[in-house]
Amino acid sequence: MTEQDKEIKLVVVGSIGLDTIETPAERREDVLGGSVSYACAAASFFTTAGMVGVVGDDFPAAHRRVYERFGIDLAGLQQVPGRTFRWSGVYETDMNTRRTLSTELNVFADFSPDLPAHYRGSPFYFLANISPELQLHVLAQASNPLFVAADTMDLWIETARTPLLELIAKVNMLTLNDSEARQLTGEQNLVRAAERLLELGPDYIAVKKGEHGCILFSAAGICVIPAFPLAAFSDPTGAGDTFAGGFMGCLAREGAVRDASVRRALAYGSVVASFGVQAFGLDRLLALEPDEIEQRLDAFRRMTSIA
Amino acid sequence: MTEQDKEIKLVVVGSIGLDTIETPAERREDVLGGSVSYACAAASFFTTAGMVGVVGDDFPAAHRRVYERFGIDLAGLQQVPGRTFRWSGVYETDMNTRRTLSTELNVFADFSPDLPAHYRGSPFYFLANISPELQLHVLAQASNPLFVAADTMDLWIETARTPLLELIAKVNMLTLNDSEARQLTGEQNLVRAAERLLELGPDYIAVKKGEHGCILFSAAGICVIPAFPLAAFSDPTGAGDTFAGGFMGCLAREGAVRDASVRRALAYGSVVASFGVQAFGLDRLLALEPDEIEQRLDAFRRMTSIA
Repeated sequence: MTEQDKEIKLVVVGSIGLDTIETPAERREDVLGGSVSYACAAASFFTTAGMVGVVGDDFPAAHRRVYERFGIDLAGLQQVPGRTFRWSGVYETDMNTRRTLSTELNVFADFSPDLPAHYRGSPFYFLANISPELQLHVLAQASNPLFVAADTMDLWIETARTPLLELIAKVNMLTLNDSEARQLTGEQNLVRAAERLLELGPDYIAVKKGEHGCILFSAAGICVIPAFPLAAFSDPTGAGDTFAGGFMGCLAREGAVRDASVRRALAYGSVVASFGVQAFGLDRLLALEPDEIEQRLDAFRRMTSIA
Repeated sequence: MTEQDKEIKLVVVGSIGLDTIETPAERREDVLGGSVSYACAAASFFTTAGMVGVVGDDFPAAHRRVYERFGIDLAGLQQVPGRTFRWSGVYETDMNTRRTLSTELNVFADFSPDLPAHYRGSPFYFLANISPELQLHVLAQASNPLFVAADTMDLWIETARTPLLELIAKVNMLTLNDSEARQLTGEQNLVRAAERLLELGPDYIAVKKGEHGCILFSAAGICVIPAFPLAAFSDPTGAGDTFAGGFMGCLAREGAVRDASVRRALAYGSVVASFGVQAFGLDRLLALEPDEIEQRLDAFRRMTSIA
């Protein structure tokens, strides 16, 4: 069986970037990042994930080897002439406020996400934050999707509302942060905002609240998942994508989407994200052992259980 | 047995006020409020609470009857010549930001919280947000306290740090909000801030995060309790005191402070607070049935359980 024939359970589409990140403690240049990197790395603890993304001819071979160490399928990774997408930002003292210093789209500007043949039968898809037109383009290539989650952001809510609404009607789950849920619906109350979003089509709405965790809304009710409390963290970049990747990977491993599997997947996503922020980029996930995930999940269960 | 001889399980000391509250939907004048009102009303669902507070000769007899309907012991309620404490504030569109319009201390300026004789043997005390000097004054009157919780605020952290630290060293639990925990310790990270506060003496630190719930820290570890998600609420005034009152009432009912009883009490506190905000002042709590509390607690357990 060649690499191209591996059975892909989860396809992740989004950005790959070289990030320059400054925190109160440290500054790092050209850290391997982007939604695809974080989501695939997190998912790889649970399932076989394939990535769809684009990098330039400056993309270091060492970064490709990082992906390989996670066991990520790279058939959908396009390398084209030009420079890789770059982003730089700085975190303020409280680490909750992030300011973007620069964004260079580079080869990402002309990204056309095409699925390799052996990705098209995958049951699970995570369409990370790219334009809704591109997310729709990916979805059109999936032959028999069982569960599709899509992320979005304020930019698309403002500039691409029509294709975004078309996308939302076609996916099983929408992930977005609390301010975006309010912006998209015009509802200040998060529960009512989520109810409005459910009416647009998805079975699940995951509202991300950063350090305050995540609330999942569905016809079955509400699940509230806090973020795992940490005494120290280094770099919050990519936490939302790590959470989503862990969640989708866990669902893909179970192969079915039931209420219990969704709750468990939310908890695993939150736990993997809590490891991810403990170092810059993918460094902590690279050193992460499956046992550590299980131990922290047990601790998380104790922290959140009502006697 | 006269009313003065009732066995008091929980003593609550704090403010009683007539609040004028403006939300985007409605404006109400002279609503019965103050930390003692909210905390005692919430506690009354679980235990026999006695209040220590002061009102002026303008305090409506109808408000006293409201307390009586909750079964609150009023031996510690002082009525003196002058006007009752008054506060007015306005909630912004998102209901998360509150602006104080005016504060009139009136009779509250000379408040000396004295415990009636039959309160002094009470096992549980909630010292709501008053000056740490007054909180210490109350504590000195307790003959054999089993569990004392104290709340505080930014004003005392700024202006009365020495007595506040003396108080903190003497109580079993300190409740404060996240920004106050950071302010008091100089630690941005909440977990580290709570670790610093535990070193000052208390067994428990409860960090309140408003709509994001509460985190409890102790030597036994961390408990994370979200706020119950509501599709609509009318008036968040007093939510923190309602939470604390429900929590302390529930602990007092169990009579012992163990890890399991603390977790359960946190959940009950959160649930009772979620009812409290559904109407102005004490209106929703006045109509609340014990069955409703149990039903919402069951729903809360389902929302927060990890499969």
